Amino acid sequence: MIGVKNQKWWGWGDEGINFSFADKPKFAPFVLDRLGVDINAAAGRPPRFDEIAVPASQLSDDLRSRLVDALGETYVVTDDECRVVHAYGKGVRDLIRVRRGQLGRVPDVVLYPGSHDEVVAIMDAVIDANAVVIPYGGGSNITASLEAEPDETRQVVSVDLGRLNKVLEIDETSQLALIEAGVLGPDMENQLNARGWTLGHFPDSFMWSTLGGWVATRSSGQQSDKFGDIADITRGLTMVMPGQVLELRPLPSTSSGPSVREMVIGSEGRLGIITKVWVNVHRIPEVKEFQAYFYPTYDDGVAAAEEIMHSDAHPIMFRVSDANETAFVMANGKKSSRMGHYMSKAIQQVMLRKGWDLDKICISFVGFEGSAVDVRYQKAITNKIIKAHGGLGVGKGPATLNDQKKYDIPYIRDFLLDRGIPADVSETSTPWSRVKEMHDETVARAEEAFAQIGHRGYIMCHVSHSYHTGACQYFTFAVADSSEKNLDSYDVVKRAVQQSFMDHGGTVSHHHGVGEEHSPWMAQDISEAGVHIQRTLFDGIDPGRNLNPGKITHDGLPGWSSNSTPPDQL
Amino acid sequence: MIGVKNQKWWGWGDEGINFSFADKPKFAPFVLDRLGVDINAAAGRPPRFDEIAVPASQLSDDLRSRLVDALGETYVVTDDECRVVHAYGKGVRDLIRVRRGQLGRVPDVVLYPGSHDEVVAIMDAVIDANAVVIPYGGGSNITASLEAEPDETRQVVSVDLGRLNKVLEIDETSQLALIEAGVLGPDMENQLNARGWTLGHFPDSFMWSTLGGWVATRSSGQQSDKFGDIADITRGLTMVMPGQVLELRPLPSTSSGPSVREMVIGSEGRLGIITKVWVNVHRIPEVKEFQAYFYPTYDDGVAAAEEIMHSDAHPIMFRVSDANETAFVMANGKKSSRMGHYMSKAIQQVMLRKGWDLDKICISFVGFEGSAVDVRYQKAITNKIIKAHGGLGVGKGPATLNDQKKYDIPYIRDFLLDRGIPADVSETSTPWSRVKEMHDETVARAEEAFAQIGHRGYIMCHVSHSYHTGACQYFTFAVADSSEKNLDSYDVVKRAVQQSFMDHGGTVSHHHGVGEEHSPWMAQDISEAGVHIQRTLFDGIDPGRNLNPGKITHDGLPGWSSNSTPPDQL
Repeated sequence: MIGVKNQKWWGWGDEGINFSFADKPKFAPFVLDRLGVDINAAAGRPPRFDEIAVPASQLSDDLRSRLVDALGETYVVTDDECRVVHAYGKGVRDLIRVRRGQLGRVPDVVLYPGSHDEVVAIMDAVIDANAVVIPYGGGSNITASLEAEPDETRQVVSVDLGRLNKVLEIDETSQLALIEAGVLGPDMENQLNARGWTLGHFPDSFMWSTLGGWVATRSSGQQSDKFGDIADITRGLTMVMPGQVLELRPLPSTSSGPSVREMVIGSEGRLGIITKVWVNVHRIPEVKEFQAYFYPTYDDGVAAAEEIMHSDAHPIMFRVSDANETAFVMANGKKSSRMGHYMSKAIQQVMLRKGWDLDKICISFVGFEGSAVDVRYQKAITNKIIKAHGGLGVGKGPATLNDQKKYDIPYIRDFLLDRGIPADVSETSTPWSRVKEMHDETVARAEEAFAQIGHRGYIMCHVSHSYHTGACQYFTFAVADSSEKNLDSYDVVKRAVQQSFMDHGGTVSHHHGVGEEHSPWMAQDISEAGVHIQRTLFDGIDPGRNLNPGKITHDGLPGWSSNSTPPDQL
Repeated sequence: MIGVKNQKWWGWGDEGINFSFADKPKFAPFVLDRLGVDINAAAGRPPRFDEIAVPASQLSDDLRSRLVDALGETYVVTDDECRVVHAYGKGVRDLIRVRRGQLGRVPDVVLYPGSHDEVVAIMDAVIDANAVVIPYGGGSNITASLEAEPDETRQVVSVDLGRLNKVLEIDETSQLALIEAGVLGPDMENQLNARGWTLGHFPDSFMWSTLGGWVATRSSGQQSDKFGDIADITRGLTMVMPGQVLELRPLPSTSSGPSVREMVIGSEGRLGIITKVWVNVHRIPEVKEFQAYFYPTYDDGVAAAEEIMHSDAHPIMFRVSDANETAFVMANGKKSSRMGHYMSKAIQQVMLRKGWDLDKICISFVGFEGSAVDVRYQKAITNKIIKAHGGLGVGKGPATLNDQKKYDIPYIRDFLLDRGIPADVSETSTPWSRVKEMHDETVARAEEAFAQIGHRGYIMCHVSHSYHTGACQYFTFAVADSSEKNLDSYDVVKRAVQQSFMDHGGTVSHHHGVGEEHSPWMAQDISEAGVHIQRTLFDGIDPGRNLNPGKITHDGLPGWSSNSTPPDQL
C-alpha cells in the first residue's frame, strides 16, 4: 500500500465524482443558448484504460535497483496507470490528449519517497544516471509543468511527494509552521485546524494541490487578499538540489542579496525538489463571513474593488464576475438549494426599479475574517464603498453557497469534454488603470478567435485577487468544437487570450505558473533580458538539463508549445 | 555645474552639519560613565583633504574619450575629491580608513549620466574596455558595497546616478509612480508630496540615500511595518545590463517563474545599473501620529510588539529600545526642548509606585497613519495590548521629537570618531520565538568581545521592524579605542555580533544589505547551496566580473573581509 491518493488518469479529481446538472434547470438551456450544444443529447465518454496504448517503461535495471535500495520496492512504481496519471497535469490540453491516447513521453517510473533523505537519494541516483526528474504534487497543474519533453530520450522519473504530508512543527509564538511539501490542501488544513491554526491558502485546486506545488508555481488562493500569495506566506524552505541541499531558515524579512527564496518560488522543479516549507499560519479566526452583492455593470464592481484596496479595509476576498460569468453562475445554481436562489423575484424588482439592465448585472462575493469587532469594522468601510458604486447587498446566502462549492468547478471541464466542448482558464494581473482595457480587449480577442476557428465560443471573467496597485482577472473560455481539431481550436483561443495579456500590460500568469504552456510569452512579459536571467539561473544550476527541463524558458516558435500545431501550420 | 550634491569626503552628510551635545547636559556624563571617555577634552579632527595622498586616476584616454562623447566633458569627473567621495560608503570602517588616508582602490572616474540612454552608453563603454562599474546613489552604504576590490587592476568607474532624480509619472488610478533611481529621499518625497502622494519609505539614511540604492540593497524604512519593505513597494523596474536592458512592467503580483524582480532587488550592482523603478505610492494620510510609551522591561515591550502583530491592528511603526538604548535616548535629549523631557518627575513617580526599576525601563515609539477614524481604531487596539504588557503612555511629545530628529543619528559617528570611539550598527531579523534569545546573546557576545580587546564598549538595541512572524532588532555598538588598532577592535566586536546573528536564527542583515562586510556569513545564513545559487546568477550574468565584483558572495576566510586583519592574525 503506497497510501497516496491520485486523481483519475483521464480527468479531474476523485473517481466517481462528476459534474452534474441535475436539479439545475437553467443549465442545459444556458449551454444551448450560448454554445449551441445540447448537453441532454448522448455524451461521449473517456476511453477505458485498456483502450489506450501505454509506452513501455524504459527504466534501466541499474537505476531501478538503486531506487529500490533507497525507497523499497513498494515505492518504485512502473505500473502503466500510475505512470499515465503522472504523465500530465490537468489542463484541458492534457485532458484532450489523454482521452485520445496521445500520451507523450510517459515517465518510466513513479517514485513515492517517504522522507527528505529519500529525496536526496533519488536526486543522487537520477543525476548519476543522467535521467530527468519531475516533481509531482497533487497533479492539478494546468501549464504543462508535469510532463517530460516529447522528444526526451533519457529516462524520465516522476517523484510523487504525496507521502511527505506531515505538519512537522508549529512555532506558536512566531505563528510559523514547518510542513512537508507533499501534503494536499485538505490534509494540511485538517492537521493545522486540529491545533487551532490555519494557513488560509485556498486555491481552486485546493483538493488536489500541495504546499510544494503552490510554492513551485507561485500560487495564490481564493482568500489571499489580506494575508498574501504563497510568495508572502513562504518564509523558509528546504530544497534538494544535485549534490546539495538548500536550507533557508524562516525569516520575516531579510536583506541577504538577490532573494534565493524568491528564486525557488515559481521554479517549477527547474532548480530542485522542495521537501519542506516554513509558512505563516494564523489562528482560526473568530469570524469568517462571506457576503454577496450585485452591481449594475462590471465596471462598477471593478471601481468598488479599487476603492476598497485604497481604503483602510482589507477583505480576505473580493470577487466580482462580469455579465457573462454572472449568467453562468445563475444558470449553474441548484433549484432545490434555498441559498441557490441567487436572485429572488423581489431582488429582480429592485434592480428593475433602479433601471438596471438584467443582462449586464454582475455578481460579487466578498469575504472577511478576524475578530467579530474587526469584521464589523471592515464590513462597514467596505459596504459604504460598495454602495457608493451602486452595489446591492443580497446577504450571506449566495456567498456562503459559493464558498461551499468553490472546489467543484474543475469537474465541469470533463463533463464539457464529454460533450465536445474544450474549456479552460487563463488569468493575469495588471495595474488598476488597465483592468477595464484588459477585460474588454481580451474578450474581444477571444471573440475574434472564435470567429477565426468558425466555432461558437464563450468567454467570461472575474476579478479574483485585488492589491493596492492592481488586480488579477480570471478568464474562463469554452469552444464548441467536438472535432479531432479541437485542440488546435483551443490553442487559437488560448493564444489570443495570452497575447492580449501581453498587449495590455498584463503578465503571463497571475498564479498558475508558466510551465511550457505560457513560456512562449515570457520574453514579452519580463523582457528578453529577464528571460536571459532566468535561463542563466537554470543553465547554471542544472547544466545537464536533468531538472524538469523545458519549463518556463522557451526555445521554440513564439506562440507555440511543443504539443500543439505551430501557428504558421494551422 | 554638475548639480548633484555629495556628502563630505571624510564623513556623514552635509559640510557644516555636525553632532552637538550643547544643551544636552546629560550626554557628556553618560559617555564618561559608559565608555570612560571625556568628550569635553580636546577632540581629534579629520585630516584636511590636502593631507591625504590620493592615487592618480588610471583612466585611459580611450575610455575617457568614449565617455566624454556619451556624457559631455562636465559629467566625466576625475577630480581627486570627487573620486575619494565615491571610493567608499559611510560605514565606520570607511570613516576610519578615509581619515587615515587609507583610500583603497579609488575609482578612476566618476560619471554623472543624465538619462537612461547615457547609462546604456556607459555600460557599453565599460564592458568594451573591460573596466569595473560600481553604481553609486547617495553614498550612505555601510556594508562596503561601493568600493572596488583593493587589488583591482582594471579601470574602476563609479556611476553617480544623482542626475536621474525625477518622478516621471504617477498612475493615480493604480497608485503607482515611475521614478528615476538616482533621486535622494527628500527630493523624491517633495516631488510626490507636491502632487498629494507619498512613498512612505523613511530609512535612517533617508537624507543621503536614493530609490535605486534602496532597491539595490533591499532597504526598509522606519515606517515600513504597514506598507512593507522596498521589496514589497517595488512593482517594476528598468535595469541596464551588459548588452541588454531589463524591463519589468509594474505588476501587483505575478506567477512568471523565479522572480526576476526579486533577483534585482538586493543585487547591489552585480547584475546591472537600475535606472527607473515603479513603486507603490499612497495618498498623504489624513492623520499621521506618533505616540511614546515606557515599559518596565524590554521583554515586555517585545511581547507587546508580538501581540500587536498578531492582532487586527497594523501600526506603521513599532519601536522599542532596550534599557541601554533608553539610557542613551534620555541622555541625548535637549534640556531646552519642552518635548525633550522624555520623562518628567511625575512620570518617574508613577513608575516608582509601580515598582519599576528605572535602570531597566524601555522607551517605545509607535506610529499610526490613515483616516482619523482608522487611526483611532488602530490606536484603541494597540493601546489595549500595550497596557496589558505594562506599557505606560507618555503622549505624543517625545515621539514627535523622535520623529523630527530621526535622521540626525548618523552624524554622531563622526563626532565619536573625533574622540577615538568607533561606533556603528548591525541589524538582523528572527522569528518572534527567538527575539529575546537574539537580544540577550548578542549583547553577551559583544560584552565578551569588549573584554577580549581590552577596551570599554557599549551595545544597545531596539526592535525596529515587526512582522507577522518576527522582528528586526537593530544593534548599535561603540568601542572606546582611539589607538591605531581601533579598526581591528571594531572588527572583533562586529564579527561577534554577526556570528551571534547566525547562531540564533537570524539573517546577515535585515535591511542594510550584504556588500563585502557581511558576505563572509552568507553561507551560514542561506546555506552553501544558497550561495551557490547567487554565485551562479552573478557569474552567469557577468562572466567578465565587470559589475561591482566581490560583493555578496565571498571567496576569502570566514569572518574576514579584505579590508581587515584576518581573524587568525589578530
